[in-house]
Amino acid sequence: MNEITVFPPATVANVVCGFDCLGFALDDPVDAMTLRLTDEKGVRITHLDDYGLPADPERNIAGVALLAMLDAIHHETGFELEITKKIKPGSGVGSSSASAVGAVVAADKLLNERFSRLELAEFAMRGEQVASAGRHADNVAPCLYGGFTLVRSVDPLDIVELEFPEIAVTVIHPQIEVKTADARRMLPAEIPLKSGVRAWSNVGALVAALAKGDLELLARSLEDAIVEPVRKTLIPHFDAVKTESLRAGALGGGISGSGPSIFMLSENQSTARRVAAAMDAVYAESGIDFNIYVTKINSEGVKFAGAEI
Amino acid sequence: MNEITVFPPATVANVVCGFDCLGFALDDPVDAMTLRLTDEKGVRITHLDDYGLPADPERNIAGVALLAMLDAIHHETGFELEITKKIKPGSGVGSSSASAVGAVVAADKLLNERFSRLELAEFAMRGEQVASAGRHADNVAPCLYGGFTLVRSVDPLDIVELEFPEIAVTVIHPQIEVKTADARRMLPAEIPLKSGVRAWSNVGALVAALAKGDLELLARSLEDAIVEPVRKTLIPHFDAVKTESLRAGALGGGISGSGPSIFMLSENQSTARRVAAAMDAVYAESGIDFNIYVTKINSEGVKFAGAEI
Repeated sequence: MNEITVFPPATVANVVCGFDCLGFALDDPVDAMTLRLTDEKGVRITHLDDYGLPADPERNIAGVALLAMLDAIHHETGFELEITKKIKPGSGVGSSSASAVGAVVAADKLLNERFSRLELAEFAMRGEQVASAGRHADNVAPCLYGGFTLVRSVDPLDIVELEFPEIAVTVIHPQIEVKTADARRMLPAEIPLKSGVRAWSNVGALVAALAKGDLELLARSLEDAIVEPVRKTLIPHFDAVKTESLRAGALGGGISGSGPSIFMLSENQSTARRVAAAMDAVYAESGIDFNIYVTKINSEGVKFAGAEI
Repeated sequence: MNEITVFPPATVANVVCGFDCLGFALDDPVDAMTLRLTDEKGVRITHLDDYGLPADPERNIAGVALLAMLDAIHHETGFELEITKKIKPGSGVGSSSASAVGAVVAADKLLNERFSRLELAEFAMRGEQVASAGRHADNVAPCLYGGFTLVRSVDPLDIVELEFPEIAVTVIHPQIEVKTADARRMLPAEIPLKSGVRAWSNVGALVAALAKGDLELLARSLEDAIVEPVRKTLIPHFDAVKTESLRAGALGGGISGSGPSIFMLSENQSTARRVAAAMDAVYAESGIDFNIYVTKINSEGVKFAGAEI
């Protein structure tokens, strides 16, 4: 095999109480990436979208991830990559992780799967560092593994695949810019121990709820008094979106990643569509452009052309 | 039925990273409590042990719990209670919760099970408040439900029963006094957000590990950088007990409740016995009296005379 096309999914990180550890993959939107092995060394990138992302591999997230992998195999080949991004950069649903993970999963496939998933995550995280300083796997983990994931530790990297029930997701992406760096800066350096206890009680309950398929418990544990209250100020109409989504039957939800997207979980697709209508009603009057996705959890991570997608 | 004998179990609360929320019940030790319905109103208590606990029901943990229940049923009966405590008060394995839970479970049985388990937990917590100010369900929950429990919230009370694999427990109880109030006072009012993230990542991983029966992940997630470092200073030879237990094959463990007991989890009973020998070797030279229990998780909570125990 000399060429492959892959579809890395959008992902939601910072799942309410699970700040900096819990994430999940979405069925929609996905990017499309076609990778070819080349005799010429190095990485050549073409963007078939119009987001203006750099084609220079050392400044491109997918490029940096591929270069890290090429270093590990002593540049025995080169890569040619065509990227069609559908996951808008900066929308808060793991656009940069999709680029990094898609590239390394495609490359590993062409190299006959010689790397472990944890190694692929490490290469992808190198790409991620172009977009944000520091090591983060919040979006890389669910994009690569699919489903719900928990990053127990970044150093050493420890990714836990969680059991979860079938569940529907509604995401609204207001077309405004929230810089991850700004969103990080607003966070408190310290939190009351009491808030910590509440947070880890909720995270434990959330993981238990997913494992049991207990949607009532899931709803009760989707609570965050640490990050949401400060970051929601960056997202117009956040409270209205949440209130109306819950009224429409959503189990709960919150800020996706560091925003501006907002996600809501629902028991089934028809409720998720009602939630979409409720979000639409809130934003329709706002004068802010927005997209809404009604989708479900992607349980397998990156998909391949030819496979059922 | 006019009389019943019950055996409420010892419990471990504050399971390492799960401070103030995670707990589990032990098969051994258990208290023995015999409760009788009486025409005479009120509660009469006899202690058949020599721990010098008050017989006055308003100052006795089991008594206060029973009085709370009698209030709820408009004192339509009275109770006579004989308590033989085997779980030493102040040992850090839920002695007071066992008294409170045993009493209300026995009473509910004699009253033809008219209360829900959550209601019984509320009565028991009223008893617990005699021993410690504030509402806590950390030991009440596992004592009442058995197995591993997570208290998601105290107000309103929300108790989650966790799935868990068969697992062995070793507990060492050094015969020294650690006052819960002192142990609470040492805790920081605030913690770094970073430590919080690490803690809730570990709690999530621990709950996932229990649900999957993944003992390697369980071992990795039994980590606490918030409470253990300050409280272990109250427990002589804590570090040596932990180090030698891990060397003997324990998965991990820490301070039980607010101490002084230390618990360690192991894959099976033979490892738990080797852990006991390692603990014994550490404490034998210390000049401090101690007891060691090798036991397993009690999965059903309070047991009844006549039932298989």
